Amino acid sequence: MQIAILLFDRFTALDAIGPYQVLSALPGADVVFAAERPGPMGLVSDEEGRLIISAEAALADVPHPDIVVVPGGPGQGDQMADGPVHAWLRAADQASTWTTSVCTGSLILAAAGLLTGRRATSHWLAIDQLAKFGATPVAERVVFDGKYVTAAGVSSGIDMALALAGQIAGDQVAQAIQLGIEYDPQPPYDAGSPDRAPADLVTALRTRSRFILTGHRG
Amino acid sequence: MQIAILLFDRFTALDAIGPYQVLSALPGADVVFAAERPGPMGLVSDEEGRLIISAEAALADVPHPDIVVVPGGPGQGDQMADGPVHAWLRAADQASTWTTSVCTGSLILAAAGLLTGRRATSHWLAIDQLAKFGATPVAERVVFDGKYVTAAGVSSGIDMALALAGQIAGDQVAQAIQLGIEYDPQPPYDAGSPDRAPADLVTALRTRSRFILTGHRG
Repeated sequence: MQIAILLFDRFTALDAIGPYQVLSALPGADVVFAAERPGPMGLVSDEEGRLIISAEAALADVPHPDIVVVPGGPGQGDQMADGPVHAWLRAADQASTWTTSVCTGSLILAAAGLLTGRRATSHWLAIDQLAKFGATPVAERVVFDGKYVTAAGVSSGIDMALALAGQIAGDQVAQAIQLGIEYDPQPPYDAGSPDRAPADLVTALRTRSRFILTGHRG
Repeated sequence: MQIAILLFDRFTALDAIGPYQVLSALPGADVVFAAERPGPMGLVSDEEGRLIISAEAALADVPHPDIVVVPGGPGQGDQMADGPVHAWLRAADQASTWTTSVCTGSLILAAAGLLTGRRATSHWLAIDQLAKFGATPVAERVVFDGKYVTAAGVSSGIDMALALAGQIAGDQVAQAIQLGIEYDPQPPYDAGSPDRAPADLVTALRTRSRFILTGHRG
C-alpha cells in the first residue's frame, strides 16, 4: 500500500508528520515523500526553514499511490495555480483509494478540481476559501466524503489518519496505533478551536492571517 | 532563544516534530536539529527509514542551547551508553534553561545522569525503566521537575511543548500557538492510554515490546 505525502517549500511540518506517524504504522504501508522540485539531494524546507526533509521521489516516480496526503502551510499559496502538481494530483486521484489533505492542503486539492461538489474542511482561518473552488466547507475536524478525507488545521491530521487507519485496517489496528503513539491528548489549555479560544486571540489571529493569506489569494 | 532538538538514527518522527511545531512558534525561537553523526549532507533517518531529516548542526556546534529536546524512538537503545551524546547532554544541561524529552528520550536523559532523584515520565511501555537510572517514574502525560520536563509517549510532546510555551512566554502566547495549530484533539477512539485501551491490545503491545526492547535493555 503506497502512501505518497506531497512536500513543497514552506509546508507545515506537523501537517505531514502527524499522518505519517500514524499511516506508516499500518500493515504493509510503504510511505514516500514526493515533491515536484526536490532540489539538490531531494531537500524540501518547511515553513520555518529549519526542518529540512529529504523527498526521495519526484512526482513522476509515484504516479499511482494508493493514498495521497497533501499537507498545508504558508507555501500552499504557491501550489494553487494549475501545473505539474495539479496534474499529478488529478492523475493520482484517478487510481487512488483515498485522497486526503491536512490544513490548507484541502485548498490545493480544491484548486486542482478534486473537491468540486464535495464536503470538505480546512484550517479554521482558511475554510471559507473552499467555497471559491466549488467545495462545501464543513467546520468539522475530519470530513469524509467518499474517498476524499480532509482535516482541519495542522494537528488534526493525527485524528484524520487514525480515522482513516480504522477504515483501512479496522478499529483494532487503529486503536493499536493510537496506543502505540500514546495519543491520549491533554492540552494544557482549551484554546484549540475558534469556538472556545479567547475571543481576542481569535480576532488577533484573523487579523494577522489577513496579511499572511493575502499572498495566497493573489 | 536557541532550541536544540537532538536527532539520532531511528528516532520517532512525531516525538521531535510535535515539540518543534509548537516551540518554533515562540517569539525569538531559533530551532536547530543537531546530531552526533549527521552523515553525508547531515541526514538522519527516523524509525521507519522513510523520513530523512537534515541535521544542520553537529553537537559541538550547539554547546549552550537554552532548551534541549530529546526525542525517543527505537534508536534510543543505541544512545544509552556513555559517550559524546551523554557528554553533550551533561554540558548543555549545565547552561540550559529547560532540559526536556519526549517518549523514551527520558531514558537517554536518565542514562546521562540528568534525572537522578527527579520525577519523570516516558512512554507507557518504557516508564518502569526510569527507576533503573535513579529517576522516579510518574505515570503522567507531562512531568515538570524544576527545569526538567519529560513527556509520555510520542504524541505527548505536543502537550509538553504547549505547557512549556506557557511557562516561557505566558498563557496567551501558548494559547495563540494552540489556536494556530488548531489543537482541538478529537481522537476517533479512546485507546491512547493503557488505562482505557482494550486490555487485549495493551497485552499485545506489551508482548511485542518485550522483543523490541530486549535490544535496548541489552
